[in-house]
Amino acid sequence: MPYNELRKDYLFDRWVVIATERSRRPTDLSKPKSEAAKTAVCPMCVGNENMTPPAVMHYQKENGEIKRSQDPPVGERSKNWLVRVIPNLFPAFSPPKQPVDEKQIVKNGCLWDAIGHHEVIVESPNHDEDPADAELPQLELVINAYIDRLKELSAKPYVKYVSIFRNYGLEAGASLSHAHSQVIATPMVPATIQEEQKASKAFYNAHGKCVFCDIIERETKGPRLVSEDEDFVVLAPYASINPLEFWIIPKRHAPNILNLTKPEISDFAKNLKVSLKALKDLVNDPPYNYGFHLALDPEDQNSYHWHLEVYPKLAIWAGFEKSTGVYINTVTPETAAGSLRKTVKL
Amino acid sequence: MPYNELRKDYLFDRWVVIATERSRRPTDLSKPKSEAAKTAVCPMCVGNENMTPPAVMHYQKENGEIKRSQDPPVGERSKNWLVRVIPNLFPAFSPPKQPVDEKQIVKNGCLWDAIGHHEVIVESPNHDEDPADAELPQLELVINAYIDRLKELSAKPYVKYVSIFRNYGLEAGASLSHAHSQVIATPMVPATIQEEQKASKAFYNAHGKCVFCDIIERETKGPRLVSEDEDFVVLAPYASINPLEFWIIPKRHAPNILNLTKPEISDFAKNLKVSLKALKDLVNDPPYNYGFHLALDPEDQNSYHWHLEVYPKLAIWAGFEKSTGVYINTVTPETAAGSLRKTVKL
Repeated sequence: MPYNELRKDYLFDRWVVIATERSRRPTDLSKPKSEAAKTAVCPMCVGNENMTPPAVMHYQKENGEIKRSQDPPVGERSKNWLVRVIPNLFPAFSPPKQPVDEKQIVKNGCLWDAIGHHEVIVESPNHDEDPADAELPQLELVINAYIDRLKELSAKPYVKYVSIFRNYGLEAGASLSHAHSQVIATPMVPATIQEEQKASKAFYNAHGKCVFCDIIERETKGPRLVSEDEDFVVLAPYASINPLEFWIIPKRHAPNILNLTKPEISDFAKNLKVSLKALKDLVNDPPYNYGFHLALDPEDQNSYHWHLEVYPKLAIWAGFEKSTGVYINTVTPETAAGSLRKTVKL
Repeated sequence: MPYNELRKDYLFDRWVVIATERSRRPTDLSKPKSEAAKTAVCPMCVGNENMTPPAVMHYQKENGEIKRSQDPPVGERSKNWLVRVIPNLFPAFSPPKQPVDEKQIVKNGCLWDAIGHHEVIVESPNHDEDPADAELPQLELVINAYIDRLKELSAKPYVKYVSIFRNYGLEAGASLSHAHSQVIATPMVPATIQEEQKASKAFYNAHGKCVFCDIIERETKGPRLVSEDEDFVVLAPYASINPLEFWIIPKRHAPNILNLTKPEISDFAKNLKVSLKALKDLVNDPPYNYGFHLALDPEDQNSYHWHLEVYPKLAIWAGFEKSTGVYINTVTPETAAGSLRKTVKL
């Protein structure tokens, strides 16, 4: 089977994966989306491990300690897991069948092979686990899994970026409801991240400091601060394009999450939980997406600062947004931060 | 009342209108969206003209001829219209209260006044008029209204771009179901359009020809052609980011629709109707957005080529798309074009 195609737009530096492995006839699209969620059997639940490919990694409790291992490529899959990472059954990006270098991935300037990885992180044996209500030790395991997968995937020579993200709720694109995140490793640095890294570098060269360190300094004093503790700041960004959008930014400058300390992991899990809980309480459990923004190239070490962006799905981007790239947000970031601030229980 | 704020992102050249006129408390967002559509009385229907501001323009039939006029600022509003253009009750961009120049609009690099216009084009007295099924003379009036509004708004000194777009279906952001389009005039050229114009100019400088003329030449021979007639080409673009996305491109090079001839207007209306009808028949009347892409600056006259982009709403952009700017499309443009081609009835 050939790889999916990664195609570039006629004009923009904008890429699309033409995902033929999950390819559908156009007429299939007329079925209501929600039917997908009504699958009788959840392939992510304990006992259904044989419905998925073997886990590339899982955490298990052995003699009171958390151990990391993986399923054998053939044969029985472990049922005794706390967090389980499996290849996506319909991957957008697929691993190379033999060693490749960048030249082999690029067919021409506008056509690449969609080589990479696409994994699902099953966050808990509990189908309905919600980070907003999860136990902190379980959520710390999920963050650990993010770090472990980032470490392994970013070491591969054909991987230039690793996107770690979560979709919550059918309207936010979560077609399966079992608690899960996703990891996609790509052969190029995606446009949005590249643009962010470029702008951060320009700021660093002009001002001799990291722009996110500067944002933290400015915003912690102002009306857009949601919460702040020893290690993290949660804020509603000045030009939020989503109602109630917030970012979680580490105070310690680091380009990515690879070297988070154990206390930082705990504190990040806590900030993630309480801010998602505040969102859930404030607007009746809305759908959302979150994604890590990070840098892997040592060149970005000083200028880029990792953070998590959380996008509640409370508005529809329509014809204006899609044709112009200009957004309309009906909730001011100051109102958003104020409401979340009052709701957050640290 | 102050103007809405137009804010720029910390890093990106990405703008958002913080639309305080339609501002809501965050808790209001938890109400189901669909309730908005269940308004008992439609403010766009004939007889309810007093529920809206006076029309800035309407077409009326007088003695068998179509006449253009407008409502008086005060007093009775005309009920005898075929197409009616009214200011949006909750405008994202508002006209200046006194003459302004660009310097007054820019508060600082990251904060502008959202000065401009936001209008609604009521496309027909018939509430359920659908361009896919409309009579061509009525649809020609709608295209005429697009041109008339573009002419008037683009002449204003503080207007740098005019976005003309349509949302169809609740899921595509049409909160009112009466057939309508929208027009937003902005004090800057929006990012997406600017980037497109810049790339088109670069292509023109490098190759001495317009990139869209080149696309037409290449795509009319290939598998992504939906239909073609004397004046227009309909195609599924090579790197479509939406399933079943298609563009309608005029064969005659022109930067915008201001100088469309009468036969071109008729032919565009026909292409719009039959391609939307094919989409409707193919996937059971899906929601969609469409938007014109055009250039107003004489500098772009040779390099930029207006066209209409139609985005069926058949997939959800989730955490991956939103964090990376890379898209996943499960229908190949070749399959999309093939299916639409078979369904189109010219």
